[in-house]
Amino acid sequence: MARWEPDARGRLQQAAMQLFRERGYADVTVAEIADRAGLTKRTFFNHFADKREVFFDNGPAFGQNVLKYLAEADPGLGAIDAAMLALTRAGLDLAPYYEFGKARLEILAATPELRERDLIKTAGLATVLAEALERREVSSREAVFAAQAALSVFSAAAAEWISHPEADFPDLMRQTLAELRSAVL
Amino acid sequence: MARWEPDARGRLQQAAMQLFRERGYADVTVAEIADRAGLTKRTFFNHFADKREVFFDNGPAFGQNVLKYLAEADPGLGAIDAAMLALTRAGLDLAPYYEFGKARLEILAATPELRERDLIKTAGLATVLAEALERREVSSREAVFAAQAALSVFSAAAAEWISHPEADFPDLMRQTLAELRSAVL
Repeated sequence: MARWEPDARGRLQQAAMQLFRERGYADVTVAEIADRAGLTKRTFFNHFADKREVFFDNGPAFGQNVLKYLAEADPGLGAIDAAMLALTRAGLDLAPYYEFGKARLEILAATPELRERDLIKTAGLATVLAEALERREVSSREAVFAAQAALSVFSAAAAEWISHPEADFPDLMRQTLAELRSAVL
Repeated sequence: MARWEPDARGRLQQAAMQLFRERGYADVTVAEIADRAGLTKRTFFNHFADKREVFFDNGPAFGQNVLKYLAEADPGLGAIDAAMLALTRAGLDLAPYYEFGKARLEILAATPELRERDLIKTAGLATVLAEALERREVSSREAVFAAQAALSVFSAAAAEWISHPEADFPDLMRQTLAELRSAVL
């Protein structure tokens, strides 16, 4: 699988994730992140508003990919299948960032402040995804439920993939959707 | 249906909700809330840590009711049916607070800061509910999906009930679960 070759922004992000993992998010300063990346604080603030934004920097690109893949999905697909397809493709694009994803989950598990922010960002993505699904001529209610369900499946399947990187992500998505269906029946 | 007869705490809460609705959450001060309730700021702070806590004051009692009803549910019920039963019963207990619930939704819709906090509190309830469901000998995955689904159904059905107070809430819960099932199939 292709390796991630980071630029200054990416180096700052890698340095931040290493430090958050080593010492805990709360104890790490922007100066230390810049220092670890071999860059200045000024360069840090050219790229990020604050320490928290380093952690969430990939979120907007992920959301844009989900919407792009959704727009490409066969118009005949139902809302849940279209949402699953888009999240599966966007998830596969994250494969080169495996180490980042693994660090991300560990840091989230250890940091309630980031978990809260992550919940809010995920809810934002659910809203945007539901709005995009509504354009496929499904009811607002169905769009919201399909978006929430597909994102719950994605979270569980992505965590599973990080624990078992040899697994096939599309398979994990399908199996996890089957588990969600069985849980609500 | 029984009317809510508020004590000092309840009067502060009613005053706060009226003011938030009239003027927007951000513009209302604690002094104004106390004044509207005919009480002092000191009394306010005997009951609430800050303005935001007035808004979320009923959350813990609701969560405790959900867990109490879940503990009473037939052990033979599956996770989703047990969660639905508990949320339906806890929802029915909110009937006397209809005006409060209606104001709550309006204020949430107008106040992103409170919506974010509400998301975090709802996620907390989903976690606690999933943990309680796991004690019913279902897998952790099934417990999480059932808890999330039941809370999504509850949010949608409760909003519907507030728009149509003459409707039967258990019926709304059942219909909304059917819509969720259809959205994920």
